[in-house]
Amino acid sequence: MLPDIDARPHHDGSPLYVSTQEPALGDAVRVRLRVPHRYGHVAGVKTRSNPNHEPRFTPAVVVHHDDDASWWEAELLIENPVHGYRFIITRASGETHFLSQAGLSDIETRDDDDFRLVTFAPPPAWGAEAVMYQVFPDRFARSSAADDRELPEWAEPAEWHDEPIYQGPSTPRQFYGGDLDGITEHLDHLERLGATVLYLTPVFPGRSNHRYDAHSFDQVDPLLGGDKALVRLVEAAHARGIKVMGDLTLNHSGDAHEWFVAARASADAPERAFYYLDDDGRYVSWLGVESLPKLNWASDELRRRFIDGPDSVVGRWLQQPYGLDGWRIDVANMTGRLDDHDLNAEVRQLTQATMRSVNPDTLLLAESTNDAQSDMQGDGWHGAMTYASFTRPVWAWLSEPGPISWFFGLPYPVMPQYTGHQVADANTRFTAAMPWRSRLNSMNALDTHDTSRFVTRARPGAVPVALGLSLSLPGIPVVFAGDEFGFTGENGEHSRTPIPWDRVDDYAPTIDLYAEHLRLRREHRALGTGSLRWLHVGDDALLFVRELADETVLVLAARDDADIALGGIDGGAAVRLIGDAELAVDARGEAVADGTVQAGPAARIRSTGMSFTAWALPGIDAPAFPGHGVPVAADSPQWSVVSRSDA
Amino acid sequence: MLPDIDARPHHDGSPLYVSTQEPALGDAVRVRLRVPHRYGHVAGVKTRSNPNHEPRFTPAVVVHHDDDASWWEAELLIENPVHGYRFIITRASGETHFLSQAGLSDIETRDDDDFRLVTFAPPPAWGAEAVMYQVFPDRFARSSAADDRELPEWAEPAEWHDEPIYQGPSTPRQFYGGDLDGITEHLDHLERLGATVLYLTPVFPGRSNHRYDAHSFDQVDPLLGGDKALVRLVEAAHARGIKVMGDLTLNHSGDAHEWFVAARASADAPERAFYYLDDDGRYVSWLGVESLPKLNWASDELRRRFIDGPDSVVGRWLQQPYGLDGWRIDVANMTGRLDDHDLNAEVRQLTQATMRSVNPDTLLLAESTNDAQSDMQGDGWHGAMTYASFTRPVWAWLSEPGPISWFFGLPYPVMPQYTGHQVADANTRFTAAMPWRSRLNSMNALDTHDTSRFVTRARPGAVPVALGLSLSLPGIPVVFAGDEFGFTGENGEHSRTPIPWDRVDDYAPTIDLYAEHLRLRREHRALGTGSLRWLHVGDDALLFVRELADETVLVLAARDDADIALGGIDGGAAVRLIGDAELAVDARGEAVADGTVQAGPAARIRSTGMSFTAWALPGIDAPAFPGHGVPVAADSPQWSVVSRSDA
Repeated sequence: MLPDIDARPHHDGSPLYVSTQEPALGDAVRVRLRVPHRYGHVAGVKTRSNPNHEPRFTPAVVVHHDDDASWWEAELLIENPVHGYRFIITRASGETHFLSQAGLSDIETRDDDDFRLVTFAPPPAWGAEAVMYQVFPDRFARSSAADDRELPEWAEPAEWHDEPIYQGPSTPRQFYGGDLDGITEHLDHLERLGATVLYLTPVFPGRSNHRYDAHSFDQVDPLLGGDKALVRLVEAAHARGIKVMGDLTLNHSGDAHEWFVAARASADAPERAFYYLDDDGRYVSWLGVESLPKLNWASDELRRRFIDGPDSVVGRWLQQPYGLDGWRIDVANMTGRLDDHDLNAEVRQLTQATMRSVNPDTLLLAESTNDAQSDMQGDGWHGAMTYASFTRPVWAWLSEPGPISWFFGLPYPVMPQYTGHQVADANTRFTAAMPWRSRLNSMNALDTHDTSRFVTRARPGAVPVALGLSLSLPGIPVVFAGDEFGFTGENGEHSRTPIPWDRVDDYAPTIDLYAEHLRLRREHRALGTGSLRWLHVGDDALLFVRELADETVLVLAARDDADIALGGIDGGAAVRLIGDAELAVDARGEAVADGTVQAGPAARIRSTGMSFTAWALPGIDAPAFPGHGVPVAADSPQWSVVSRSDA
Repeated sequence: MLPDIDARPHHDGSPLYVSTQEPALGDAVRVRLRVPHRYGHVAGVKTRSNPNHEPRFTPAVVVHHDDDASWWEAELLIENPVHGYRFIITRASGETHFLSQAGLSDIETRDDDDFRLVTFAPPPAWGAEAVMYQVFPDRFARSSAADDRELPEWAEPAEWHDEPIYQGPSTPRQFYGGDLDGITEHLDHLERLGATVLYLTPVFPGRSNHRYDAHSFDQVDPLLGGDKALVRLVEAAHARGIKVMGDLTLNHSGDAHEWFVAARASADAPERAFYYLDDDGRYVSWLGVESLPKLNWASDELRRRFIDGPDSVVGRWLQQPYGLDGWRIDVANMTGRLDDHDLNAEVRQLTQATMRSVNPDTLLLAESTNDAQSDMQGDGWHGAMTYASFTRPVWAWLSEPGPISWFFGLPYPVMPQYTGHQVADANTRFTAAMPWRSRLNSMNALDTHDTSRFVTRARPGAVPVALGLSLSLPGIPVVFAGDEFGFTGENGEHSRTPIPWDRVDDYAPTIDLYAEHLRLRREHRALGTGSLRWLHVGDDALLFVRELADETVLVLAARDDADIALGGIDGGAAVRLIGDAELAVDARGEAVADGTVQAGPAARIRSTGMSFTAWALPGIDAPAFPGHGVPVAADSPQWSVVSRSDA
């Protein structure tokens, strides 16, 4: 039997538990395990690494002991680029438990659930601390220049206050004329919200309002103001400390793209090899949509033009005068994959290498809307735009029941109704097979330009709870422009709502609610990079801490009344940051089952109805790690790492 | 909430559920889901495939309905060499369940738990139906020729009845002088047991009794009788219908190997590149054991000599005059892996391709004693010699408690004590991420030459239960020579017991017990290739069926008294095959929770104490699949599969 969740040993990839966030091959890295006294006596702890797929065990020793827990530490020798490890805990009772990223287990755990240290180049530090604001350029704001532009043939002009057409042939053609200078003019709104990253869906010219069908990657769409408007936007954003990310389709281009036109025009064109085009003119396209011909990454020339080197599309826009801070990659999950070949790893590694070569402080996010884990091992994509770990579980917990016509493409005829257990389990399940750094850099979106808006089906009062979870669970909180206005949307297309700048004041309460919550993320670093430790998982309430050495943030997310007693938290020292729940000091010194261990500080939390409440608590007083990873084999041939460690 | 295990929908990779065991790219394969009426009303079933990592859903329809269950069927288009899929089941209540190889789930499941259809060349049919007998040649039997052989310097001669020395410098030197003609002389013993495959640990010359330190792969050790003795053994075995498998170290050679000697002698030797040898003479070896230098598979010349093509070591011994039927690969998990390179996939694929080219009816098994799944995707190794899915869980269920000095290299200070739930969970967990065919071809060993013998710590009466599980759970049952004599052994070295041929009659009851059980596997094909459906999982009892269209075998494994009521089994039609448990017809027509569905046939099973009991039941009367996989894109360019399916 496993103990209550708050009495379980804990480890994750955060700085409290791992001595370096940037391990290298040959490093000795220290890892720690926190064992609450309520867990009961422990006879011994070992780590189990798996270098070259062969288990190696390292004993841990206690390095710290406080009122509530003991801290065990072991040293791991990093022998492979992805170093998996777990903890094996022998209780005084003789029972053995295994702790992996999938949680505590009373049977052996799988390799792919292991904790992971990865030696690839790390993501930029700002990713895990970001508050992202997503803008669909056609719908955000029109500058005065927008009125003077001639519309292309495909466009069907809309009035700014028209409702988006949510399906049918006009959906991609409905053209509102938002542009980049319009965004520049409203950066104060992003500042008001506390956004630190602006993510723009594509700005390259296409034949649709979404521009995922680019006919060039070499210029910004003149309908958006052209290259210079992008320069103005990025400069203005940077001046306010806001990063700007672009959006690239590495999976396909538009069928009007100059490459595809050339490929179709001549069998001898170098671009012929960029696509899966046969002699009869048939070609593979994204899910059979003919306007989106799929790219064939076996072509070196395609790589050179698109992703390889500073002069490639990927490299050029990150440099001056444009200076984008990263890319979100559309359909990254399908990129480079077809039939019996899979070039995805090569594409993502090359893309990241190019980015690093022009600016190592850039972020690379990958759309992968389901189980993203196998591609998120740290070798390429820094994190995922995924709906499996956060978005769908939170919807399923906080949405009204009833029939639905859409649930993220999944065949649910009615809105799934998750308990809190299912939410926590899903969040764990879809992050257990990726490194901690990839988890921190994956997007916790409540909705995007491709989804219905969360509030459309949300239970009354659910928005602060959902928003609060997005900024307090590991991952990047994302506001899709319009969420903070309380807009609804039945599907992705319907959610691409133009922002009513002439009536912003009408929406001040909602905007302020967003700003007030998002502020937490900026002001409390633990919410970005701190460890995640669950304290209570119930049907209607989730309680956890995010922790760094100097700060603990305690978070309650509840959808109904909650009354939770828990150990390990000193209620007297808590400072409420947001929300209405009460935190009280509870009895101390309670004896645990075996009669030998005293509980430490304890608290009781009570809340009513929907509640997102957070408190600041003092940090952990465990001793700091004595430094970063220690190189053990710097002067020896690469392979001698193995021999030496066995000597 | 999930229903009882015997009321859950079921699918696996067996012929009742999948229309072909040999799918090809572009095939349409039909898959079926059995939904017991006790599960409750189902509103709809879809499959979720993941071609090119993008979900695709296919609706299933009911194709058969009987007293106990409905059978749903859907057609899958096979687009990638490893095609993952799951079932999404919407209940009339609105709840959605997901069925993957990890079992039924009320939250979404992970891609790596998906059922898998693989288009690689299939394993030989005899693998999944095998009864394997493992022989350590030095310890099985001496022919009369053995007395005449001159012993090498390293050997320390032992008398045949001496106890093996279980640790210390003499352990690898203790030399009993068993040889291949000795085995040939005792093939009647294998027939008596019902073995269909003889697996020999290495027969190449080394400087140890175990011969894992080969100094040549080009000749059979003269101490074993040389090449001609191998020819005699294989011919005699084949004459009795017994296959013979050899054992190769692809991870390393011995340090006296001609290749390593040449590599050390000259920096210019072609063999230099076969190893990780630096200019100071340092080299990487298996876990730091200097007598076992690790091979570097970056060398094409090494590949050519060892694994690539009919004239390589791998190819040559499978051909006449030797005619071995397959290889077991030592330390396959570490092979080709070091630091930041991983050539394992290339080595296993090339090895299998060579084997197929000389004899497609050969089997390739890989030692991978822990979580073997990531390497067992069907592209190379056919199955694993692993202890994670079967061996350790069964030991932990059926061994006496108490301190131990060894548990398969894992740091358990006391014998783990699993419940039946833990056994079933571990068997599922460590097979959920591999294709069905790899599971069928993995070894269900109770012990091997590398382990303590199962009976050493077994609870009284546990042997038939453990042996019974080894032959009735998916996987290849293995008898390590001596098990059938009831020998004990404290560790692998101690377990390498010489067989007392002069006293075989004293052991007749144990040998007969083995033979009587193993006979079941040969006589009931369902135990080899039938589906596995759990009916009851309790602390002390496991109950399941293995099913083919024409035969169901019901299996009870109990370690204590059991009394189990279950639906879906018609007790009146059962024929007992072995064991003492009672199976009685129970009440029929019981109403389930929602009051609308009638239960089908039902039974009650009662047993006392340790029990392995099996019954034969009629097969399933579901309609046969109308044929094998249907090619849908045979005449189109390979990549057009995607476009066409979306047209």
